[in-house]
Amino acid sequence: MQKKYRKPKLKLIPLGGLGEIGKNMMVVEYDNDILVIDCGLMFPEEDMMGIDLVIPDISYLLERKEKIRGIVITHAHEDHIGALPYILPQLNVPVYCTRLAKGLISVKLKEGKALEAAEINVIEPGKPFSLGCFKVEFFPVCHSIPDAVGLIIDTPIGVVVHTGDFKLDYTPVYGEPTNLSRLAQVGSKGVLLLLSDSTHAERPGYTPSERVIGEALDTIISRAKGRVIVATFASLISRLQQVIDAAANHNRKVFVFGRSMSDNVKMALELGYLKAPEGVLGKPEELRGLPPEKIVMITTGSQGEPTSALVRIANHGHRQVSIVKGDTVVVSASPIPGNESLINRTIDSLFKQGAEVFYDQLSQVHVHGHASQEELKLVLNLVKPRFFVPVHGEFRHLTIHSRLALDAGVEENNIFRMEDGDVLEITPNSGRIAGRVNSGHVYVDGLSVGDVGGVILRNRRMLSRDGIVVVIIAVNRQTGKLVSRPDIVSRGFVDTVESKDMIEEGKELVARIVDHSGKMEADLSSADSRVRDELNRYFFEKTKRRPMILPVLVKI
Amino acid sequence: MQKKYRKPKLKLIPLGGLGEIGKNMMVVEYDNDILVIDCGLMFPEEDMMGIDLVIPDISYLLERKEKIRGIVITHAHEDHIGALPYILPQLNVPVYCTRLAKGLISVKLKEGKALEAAEINVIEPGKPFSLGCFKVEFFPVCHSIPDAVGLIIDTPIGVVVHTGDFKLDYTPVYGEPTNLSRLAQVGSKGVLLLLSDSTHAERPGYTPSERVIGEALDTIISRAKGRVIVATFASLISRLQQVIDAAANHNRKVFVFGRSMSDNVKMALELGYLKAPEGVLGKPEELRGLPPEKIVMITTGSQGEPTSALVRIANHGHRQVSIVKGDTVVVSASPIPGNESLINRTIDSLFKQGAEVFYDQLSQVHVHGHASQEELKLVLNLVKPRFFVPVHGEFRHLTIHSRLALDAGVEENNIFRMEDGDVLEITPNSGRIAGRVNSGHVYVDGLSVGDVGGVILRNRRMLSRDGIVVVIIAVNRQTGKLVSRPDIVSRGFVDTVESKDMIEEGKELVARIVDHSGKMEADLSSADSRVRDELNRYFFEKTKRRPMILPVLVKI
Repeated sequence: MQKKYRKPKLKLIPLGGLGEIGKNMMVVEYDNDILVIDCGLMFPEEDMMGIDLVIPDISYLLERKEKIRGIVITHAHEDHIGALPYILPQLNVPVYCTRLAKGLISVKLKEGKALEAAEINVIEPGKPFSLGCFKVEFFPVCHSIPDAVGLIIDTPIGVVVHTGDFKLDYTPVYGEPTNLSRLAQVGSKGVLLLLSDSTHAERPGYTPSERVIGEALDTIISRAKGRVIVATFASLISRLQQVIDAAANHNRKVFVFGRSMSDNVKMALELGYLKAPEGVLGKPEELRGLPPEKIVMITTGSQGEPTSALVRIANHGHRQVSIVKGDTVVVSASPIPGNESLINRTIDSLFKQGAEVFYDQLSQVHVHGHASQEELKLVLNLVKPRFFVPVHGEFRHLTIHSRLALDAGVEENNIFRMEDGDVLEITPNSGRIAGRVNSGHVYVDGLSVGDVGGVILRNRRMLSRDGIVVVIIAVNRQTGKLVSRPDIVSRGFVDTVESKDMIEEGKELVARIVDHSGKMEADLSSADSRVRDELNRYFFEKTKRRPMILPVLVKI
Repeated sequence: MQKKYRKPKLKLIPLGGLGEIGKNMMVVEYDNDILVIDCGLMFPEEDMMGIDLVIPDISYLLERKEKIRGIVITHAHEDHIGALPYILPQLNVPVYCTRLAKGLISVKLKEGKALEAAEINVIEPGKPFSLGCFKVEFFPVCHSIPDAVGLIIDTPIGVVVHTGDFKLDYTPVYGEPTNLSRLAQVGSKGVLLLLSDSTHAERPGYTPSERVIGEALDTIISRAKGRVIVATFASLISRLQQVIDAAANHNRKVFVFGRSMSDNVKMALELGYLKAPEGVLGKPEELRGLPPEKIVMITTGSQGEPTSALVRIANHGHRQVSIVKGDTVVVSASPIPGNESLINRTIDSLFKQGAEVFYDQLSQVHVHGHASQEELKLVLNLVKPRFFVPVHGEFRHLTIHSRLALDAGVEENNIFRMEDGDVLEITPNSGRIAGRVNSGHVYVDGLSVGDVGGVILRNRRMLSRDGIVVVIIAVNRQTGKLVSRPDIVSRGFVDTVESKDMIEEGKELVARIVDHSGKMEADLSSADSRVRDELNRYFFEKTKRRPMILPVLVKI
């Protein structure tokens, strides 16, 4: 007979992704210790109107502040560090990360005026450190930013491996390949639980090495007759290195455009993540004097961001650069879902102005940073976990990754496709989703965090569809009678000149309703809702539109 | 020395696409005759808030109504016929199309109460007919709807070939393969101008035949243990045939869900485009009695449309059907750009409820309806046109297709990448973009066509971002003084409880401004704009948001 397991259970709780489970924040809890993995932000979805950013709801953590031993960062992308300026001041715990991550986090906290109070510890891969009952070790992984790591977490009931965002890449451009030997080592000793990146679990085969891009860029630059403009992610520092190398190789100078790109190049040069041979990086004032075949530009805008350097160049909106025939543009990125049409519009515009454009549909000018199916299977095979939780993906990715785990020998009952807020409880022998905690997400809009909720968004959506009709009803405070004819002002509803007659009839309708109501408060408020209903009906009949109707009562 | 060409020139004018050149409407003009090819609608882009549909601006045609000999339809997809209910009553000319297209157009015109006045002529492929100085012949092409055709137009200065939307498909499921022999024939006699479908010019190789899908569906249905639900486009009738065949093959009954799907199945059965063996199509009341392994359902919703049958099934919102473990769902479609996240959410939700889901990322359950690069080259090779205009694509597609034409031997100066409204003038020996006409597009919003323009959309966008603040200022008509304290009502801006103090201070600010203004009309209107400016500044400083500010002056 199996004994009842009496020790505390290991808990695992993904928090606050918009469907991408455990990407922005993952809570690991055992008895009196909590370790938080990553603290990222999400970009608003289409129907989150006017929202700037979305961050995880951390009410679960706020109720257990004294248990939190620290936040461990796997790598310095926005979806893993971007919520720190909002959340770190609330939790006030130390942060543990690699050197580059510290650099980028510091910039972020400084902007948010939260740097001074923060304790950020740089951790070397392979050197374990303790957080409460947990012993954490970083192991290097390849991803689309340098200094990315996965985690080996020694817990009181067994070892947890978290891959972070990763791909294998045996020939990376910067740093070490993903440390498979270390994974094999811990795997052979026995791993309780594996959390592994599912972002690209839909893709069969292997993700190509970053190295292939270097060759493609070199060929493009060697053949280009005029200037070459390369747009990519500002954090993809190995790609910048490849551009600089190819430019140097063909005696071109490199000029950097876009604020985030300039900031990152400067920082990466200072910290040694980027190397440029003497004289290859050009100063802005040198640009004018150089012939086109001596120029390479690196810009932001690979996602079609409207205010980025590339998009301003494409739309004649850049002070220094405009496209001329003979220019070559390389969009060295693939679209983040949702950005497709912005990017396509930019490419179309560049073609219209006579540029030669290379983009991912046409040539291999980008490889992504996540493992494909064969890599995921290899990791499952080396780590041989008892329990498996696919993370960093939407539910279909988790499902597909789960099947890979099943094929790799993990027992079906030991695989958990989680949703945000689910609590997975694990003992050495069993696991189950034991409940749910308050999860969800919090909107950042302008200066305020969390004040925009469902009602405000519902109103914005309604306003966006058919506009607003404001009805001004001025009545005598004593008699409740109209003191002047009701007025109607609309915005975003109809063309006010063309629809003059309809609006005038609307005013008549309001006047009749108010004239027939009594003078008491209750009568007025019922008149208010009758005005709303009848105007709604009247305007819908006339236009098949449903503007927001806002009666305003002025009592004189 | 070349003589000056004195005969009228052939004109070609694409109208009204949102970037997809010549897809929705193409004008062919020679002297006193105009022929219009297709009359389609566009779906609104993300920033066209509240807009239902977009149709081409036909002011060019309205000014030349007496010259128009007819509208020729290549196939019955929305982006080629959907604007007829709006445009046909304005032009009042005959329509020429294939039999299926007539069926679908009639339904459309009936809904729009424009059927009785319409003259719709069914034309058989291979049987030329005259339209003014033009002789038009339909030739069959394969596409994702039956009865699609391309056009061979004999004009006074030479032959124009228009492929329509097409792919080759040597083994189509319904109807004939694209008629390459006829193209070779006209090609060998000499073709002046080729217009060819560029939609998938980015894709190398050949587009697979529809036939491969039949095999995939048969395998999926044969292996499924429970019900099989197939979602696809309602107009993709050959796919419906494949589902019916596979179901019959495995002794399952087929049930049809979704209004447009039911309508199309009924119409296609009646017209003979769809064939179902006796007893295979089930009646709704039979569904309950059948075991799951005897059931196949065909539904709408392959694009994740929120009100479609599949999406309601996925979200527990369907009266008759909900997902149970063991169900298999096939999404037999690929996302139309922009629909990705809706479709992904639907797939995620189906997986969460325990369905097995097949979709295009995972298995070949869909092939698209447009030619890939090798097919485009083959057509260029057979037709050997003197002039070439890539159509039906965004500018980058036209660019890539132009390169294929150049490789296939068309002279660079004879290739024209057009934009909507461009006028291409062609003589037997030369061609040039000779000017531009009024083009653009017209918004349909509710009952009205064209009243929504830039101002209304700008207002809707502004309202959608940060909401609205209505400021009510009641003044004495004679003295211009406030008769009561200004009031502020907001929607979609801030949480009115949390921000009570800010709103109160806003009222004070308004009161001060109005109290300091004079009593004249001019003073009041300047007070109005000062209220707007100062509240704008005040609220932005407090919130970093910029709501629309709407001061309403009530004069008593």
